[in-house]
Amino acid sequence: MSNVNKVVLAYSGGLDTSVILKWLQDTYQCEVVTFTADIGQGEELEPARAKALQFGIKPEHIFIDDLREEFVRDFVFPMFRCNTIYEGEYLLGTSIARPLIAKRQIEIARQVGADTVSHGATGKGNDQVRFELGYYALEPGIKVISPWREWDLLSRQKLLAYAEAAGIPVDMKHKQGGAPYSMDANLLHISYEGRHLEDPNAEAEESMWRWTVSPEDAPDQAQYLEIEFVKGDPVSIDGQKLTPAALLARLNEIGGRHGIGRLDLVENRYVGMKSRGCYETPGGTILLKAHRAIESITLDREVAHLKDDLMPRYASLIYNGYWWSPERRAMQVLIDHTQQHVNGTVRLKLYKGNVYTVGRDSADTLFDQTIATFDDDGGAYNQADAAGFIKLNALRMRIEAKKGRQ
Amino acid sequence: MSNVNKVVLAYSGGLDTSVILKWLQDTYQCEVVTFTADIGQGEELEPARAKALQFGIKPEHIFIDDLREEFVRDFVFPMFRCNTIYEGEYLLGTSIARPLIAKRQIEIARQVGADTVSHGATGKGNDQVRFELGYYALEPGIKVISPWREWDLLSRQKLLAYAEAAGIPVDMKHKQGGAPYSMDANLLHISYEGRHLEDPNAEAEESMWRWTVSPEDAPDQAQYLEIEFVKGDPVSIDGQKLTPAALLARLNEIGGRHGIGRLDLVENRYVGMKSRGCYETPGGTILLKAHRAIESITLDREVAHLKDDLMPRYASLIYNGYWWSPERRAMQVLIDHTQQHVNGTVRLKLYKGNVYTVGRDSADTLFDQTIATFDDDGGAYNQADAAGFIKLNALRMRIEAKKGRQ
Amino acid sequence: MSNVNKVVLAYSGGLDTSVILKWLQDTYQCEVVTFTADIGQGEELEPARAKALQFGIKPEHIFIDDLREEFVRDFVFPMFRCNTIYEGEYLLGTSIARPLIAKRQIEIARQVGADTVSHGATGKGNDQVRFELGYYALEPGIKVISPWREWDLLSRQKLLAYAEAAGIPVDMKHKQGGAPYSMDANLLHISYEGRHLEDPNAEAEESMWRWTVSPEDAPDQAQYLEIEFVKGDPVSIDGQKLTPAALLARLNEIGGRHGIGRLDLVENRYVGMKSRGCYETPGGTILLKAHRAIESITLDREVAHLKDDLMPRYASLIYNGYWWSPERRAMQVLIDHTQQHVNGTVRLKLYKGNVYTVGRDSADTLFDQTIATFDDDGGAYNQADAAGFIKLNALRMRIEAKKGRQ
Amino acid sequence: MSNVNKVVLAYSGGLDTSVILKWLQDTYQCEVVTFTADIGQGEELEPARAKALQFGIKPEHIFIDDLREEFVRDFVFPMFRCNTIYEGEYLLGTSIARPLIAKRQIEIARQVGADTVSHGATGKGNDQVRFELGYYALEPGIKVISPWREWDLLSRQKLLAYAEAAGIPVDMKHKQGGAPYSMDANLLHISYEGRHLEDPNAEAEESMWRWTVSPEDAPDQAQYLEIEFVKGDPVSIDGQKLTPAALLARLNEIGGRHGIGRLDLVENRYVGMKSRGCYETPGGTILLKAHRAIESITLDREVAHLKDDLMPRYASLIYNGYWWSPERRAMQVLIDHTQQHVNGTVRLKLYKGNVYTVGRDSADTLFDQTIATFDDDGGAYNQADAAGFIKLNALRMRIEAKKGRQ
Repeated sequence: MSNVNKVVLAYSGGLDTSVILKWLQDTYQCEVVTFTADIGQGEELEPARAKALQFGIKPEHIFIDDLREEFVRDFVFPMFRCNTIYEGEYLLGTSIARPLIAKRQIEIARQVGADTVSHGATGKGNDQVRFELGYYALEPGIKVISPWREWDLLSRQKLLAYAEAAGIPVDMKHKQGGAPYSMDANLLHISYEGRHLEDPNAEAEESMWRWTVSPEDAPDQAQYLEIEFVKGDPVSIDGQKLTPAALLARLNEIGGRHGIGRLDLVENRYVGMKSRGCYETPGGTILLKAHRAIESITLDREVAHLKDDLMPRYASLIYNGYWWSPERRAMQVLIDHTQQHVNGTVRLKLYKGNVYTVGRDSADTLFDQTIATFDDDGGAYNQADAAGFIKLNALRMRIEAKKGRQ
Repeated sequence: MSNVNKVVLAYSGGLDTSVILKWLQDTYQCEVVTFTADIGQGEELEPARAKALQFGIKPEHIFIDDLREEFVRDFVFPMFRCNTIYEGEYLLGTSIARPLIAKRQIEIARQVGADTVSHGATGKGNDQVRFELGYYALEPGIKVISPWREWDLLSRQKLLAYAEAAGIPVDMKHKQGGAPYSMDANLLHISYEGRHLEDPNAEAEESMWRWTVSPEDAPDQAQYLEIEFVKGDPVSIDGQKLTPAALLARLNEIGGRHGIGRLDLVENRYVGMKSRGCYETPGGTILLKAHRAIESITLDREVAHLKDDLMPRYASLIYNGYWWSPERRAMQVLIDHTQQHVNGTVRLKLYKGNVYTVGRDSADTLFDQTIATFDDDGGAYNQADAAGFIKLNALRMRIEAKKGRQ
Repeated sequence: MSNVNKVVLAYSGGLDTSVILKWLQDTYQCEVVTFTADIGQGEELEPARAKALQFGIKPEHIFIDDLREEFVRDFVFPMFRCNTIYEGEYLLGTSIARPLIAKRQIEIARQVGADTVSHGATGKGNDQVRFELGYYALEPGIKVISPWREWDLLSRQKLLAYAEAAGIPVDMKHKQGGAPYSMDANLLHISYEGRHLEDPNAEAEESMWRWTVSPEDAPDQAQYLEIEFVKGDPVSIDGQKLTPAALLARLNEIGGRHGIGRLDLVENRYVGMKSRGCYETPGGTILLKAHRAIESITLDREVAHLKDDLMPRYASLIYNGYWWSPERRAMQVLIDHTQQHVNGTVRLKLYKGNVYTVGRDSADTLFDQTIATFDDDGGAYNQADAAGFIKLNALRMRIEAKKGRQ
Repeated sequence: MSNVNKVVLAYSGGLDTSVILKWLQDTYQCEVVTFTADIGQGEELEPARAKALQFGIKPEHIFIDDLREEFVRDFVFPMFRCNTIYEGEYLLGTSIARPLIAKRQIEIARQVGADTVSHGATGKGNDQVRFELGYYALEPGIKVISPWREWDLLSRQKLLAYAEAAGIPVDMKHKQGGAPYSMDANLLHISYEGRHLEDPNAEAEESMWRWTVSPEDAPDQAQYLEIEFVKGDPVSIDGQKLTPAALLARLNEIGGRHGIGRLDLVENRYVGMKSRGCYETPGGTILLKAHRAIESITLDREVAHLKDDLMPRYASLIYNGYWWSPERRAMQVLIDHTQQHVNGTVRLKLYKGNVYTVGRDSADTLFDQTIATFDDDGGAYNQADAAGFIKLNALRMRIEAKKGRQ
């Protein structure tokens, strides 16, 4: 066990990280600094301060930060510029929050002179990787404590026993019944794992979902929505300018009301196993659709295809925890460069779980009605050119066919 | 103008290809062979025979073929093995039918000793490319006549005048009002272009859609569906084995009833311009979701990612007309190889335009519940291993950070 | 034939472009502006002025520009930042010069108010594509005349007859014997096509090569060379700072003396056929080796691999004439971003056709001797970590193996 | 420490693996089975038997196998079908041998009923990964002992002391002076690491190289060579059919004589650090050049480019130890499919370190002399087609330029 002086803990104030806080004090005899971030998870954060004080944390060692704007502006939006989806479906709601937590933890560690950081992610999941790759990339000499990989509190019973012994209040729902869903929430999404989801053939219970009404309960009336983009980022809804966090919150509210953004999938974790997860991403689901739509009229074909070709790699980097890697940053430079003309407005129709693009408009449009249609286009496109285009593209296949290959 | 002896025309029996038929006879003084294929477009084909006879086509030169099973088995299903989507959204319903038409036209040309083939695709679209690349790849010495690139009937008026002069019946809707939507239908989809869709900001009229009810009019009751896959292809619905064409038709019927598969987009044509299209792909939309779900538990992560990385390229090949190219065939060999264990059953919920995966099961599953969860897994996964995994993956970033790069 | 007012011709002063000059005057009755560029081809350019005057070109319509520095700085070096090779071997010497010629021609057209540009590339080659894609990308409304695709002077005899009739001097070697090699030279390379190279199984004659001595005739004594890089570009040789063009010229001189950079290959042209070409690229061959070497110690692994993965696509873009495309520019932004720390010095040994890297050094090195070796590294790398790294990377394969798949 | 019953050790008979053998007996009190493979490393293997007997290994537990043909046929040649190079230069000579060793060790473990395997690779290198990923992929329940990661013999002194105490003969060169180069040899290559190579700026000593003469000492007379390929694999040299191993041995002998295949580089290890290595790959260097040449006339352009695009990924898989992964096998299926027409003969010139392609010929050639040249080609290629080809390819860029983007 390495020598630890002062440790910055990513602290939610909940049961698990409270046990971790105490366990760090007990085990390492070190000073603990708590860091609690508001990234839009929708919980009161002040109770975390009170709890930390109870554990004897010095007031100046309790950090509670509102990171919502930074989260959406510097992490969510850059990711959406690439239409990022992992394994065809997952919008990376958990993955994209981790690098910000890691960054802020390291900043605090520098500020308070801590030599160590710690987190509450388990030893079989992706989040431990995302946190720790972030730590090491930003502060190469940092020490990391991952309690779930170290301690012996691996059963629910042992954890609760430790909590009780330490005087950590355990509410009734934890004491009774089985384990709860493993959940993670932020402004982009809420996720569910565990319990009966562990059987990939069992349907999620309706009662599990928290952010979205069921499509069956959504309004019978469709809602139209207009989103404006500037350089690939959304800036207003129905004409109203909003900050990044406010805009995403608004989309979540609207999308949730229409039952939009539920997802049930089996994904491949970076640490090697498959896992079942359910996700609600109402605002993100709307945003992805809208961003593709505005790109469809403002991006050149080959630039769009280049982005599509790179996207799965970029998504894997984020999923696997490489936000702070040099290769992600290099790809971001390309992606951001492509967004300079991605300006304009997209009209969407929302109805009972569906998001439909119904219109897109832009001063930077590359859509040229006269060229695309059957009308005379004033010579911009000569139909006879197509013959040559086809003949030359066919040439290598004709040569091959002459050799009897097919 | 090259010397033409006998030409095989892709003949629908409609107004445009009837004008083409006559124009070929008038212009090239050649014998015309008509080929009409049933690929599930949902129209009576026998009237095409009668019309062809009226133009003096010899009975033995009139080919009317039911290609539905071949279409779905050898073209649609292989494409879906790759979860193929063009530009993030389009399921390639038109693109995938063209190579089959081209192949059969060439077969007929060989059978009847024709030196030329012809089609009714326009000079600004993708279909001319798809047809002709197919012709040339399969029969490198074939001659091709593309009337829309050659003749001067480029306005609707001229075309109708030519038709009337030739005694081709023109129904009232063509005479009156503006141009109809340019539509294309087969077992996979129906597409719409033109008219007021030419303004990318104008919403499609509800009356345009033909295959699907509007989600608003879909049943208030969700429907559950079970699809079984063998080697990546669907073989049964709710336990009932079906041929490929029957299965896709069934999915279209069910999906259409639930308002599934409507799409409105602006795409990038191979010939260089953007174009607005609307698509209904009810069965295909269900199939894509289901195929991803069965792959999610039966495919290895890196194999799945390899497929995802190659998919946009494979989609572009099909969109651009390179089905018969050696590079598409090479990619298909890889794709098909990966599907050998893609067996099992997917449960879906359909509701008012939505398709939700709610369960997946397979004897070939790679999902291991004990490894993925928090339970003890008998040593298959040692949590301590994650520390080393992270440390080594972080090493290069730590070295970089030490050099002050970020 | 379109109406042409004033045409800017890429004019070398040689026989072919002189015939073109005259043919343009005869055929289009238009004013001709000549543009002759020094891109290091090693020929006197002033004779071109005299010839142009003979054809009645106005003095202010004769442009003779020294573009050598711009060529190397803005085209050659950016390309080498990506270690660019087409089809595993070709260093793209011809391809990279065309976009510059096209750009300057368009600039002149704007300056003199010309509506048309023209070039002397043949109708079966890549250069016509490279020139014209450049023209159109930079000036979308420009008219282009490609004489070799229009006129009927397709045999050597007809061309010479036209020249004689027009009073264009034809030297003896053109009159006698067969066609010469088709050659192209600039500061990066000289290329050879045609004549007996048309048989891909015939060895090139020793007498063909112009820039390099044969390895057999190269010095028996090896030469050591030190090249310094700043941000991915070479800036000095053996400690002597040189401008881009001077540096490449020096490398050509040194490399040529040692018989370095000969290449004989069959390449795939963009227009569809294969063609045999021989190339001498002495300086470029040295530069590629040196650039890879400096990157090997200064680039992060995954950044280097990202570049390697993108390189073939980037090379094809340049080969096919898409330098001025938005997708090439987007890729360049990524590539240039990666070069910010590619600083340092490479030592090379040159000997009879070979270039060996023998040392590399950099203040920005990521090579850490203590970590890489068997020595104790003070805890930077814990060998035990490798066990976890391997175990987690193996997990998915172990799960698969348990299912009996191999 | 896990319970070990019987362990199969990859045993060279040298000092290090002899110490390992003894250490396994001492530490685990287990039965040891030795496996010594001839993969062309050029050493006598029978002494390994005598040594194993001295350690008390049962005769039936001593395996000495000649794997040379299998190595070249099933590992080296498949890899060369992809023109595989890691990081632009390295021919993967060490990487490609490890999967075979792993496979054979697992086969022996099954045969003798061993529960464990062991190897002598160090804890900072790639080989431990390659061995162990192979073991796990082939036998998911196998136990692995990696002594270098477990024991405390991490200095040369401790190792020698252990050897002496165990009665293992240590020859003089080990006792005196510093550590030797870390070398690895097989039929494809010999590698060097360590010693003064640890300074990437220090030139390798001439005395280090073992397989190749220095180019300076190579014959003054060039040698011509003809290699015949069938389905992408070489089958004969100068008309003489040879088995895979014999063919590669012959190429090594010829190449070594001409000083071909020396390489000095800094590579990026999978475990995260950079390392300096020197390699001699005489036969492989010739083979790569020849294989590219035969592909250049027999492969379709887009198939060749598809292979080039996939190659870096395929190379990384092999370098990183994923030969037995499902993704490598999927890629191999594609690669092998492309080789069916890669038949024919390549002529090469070898001279003082250089390999030049001077001719290539094939009954399956796609090179069509009449199309590629300036001669009339009977209508196979219409020069006017190029105009349409260019115009359509330029269209999107013209539209963009009209919007003022550049």
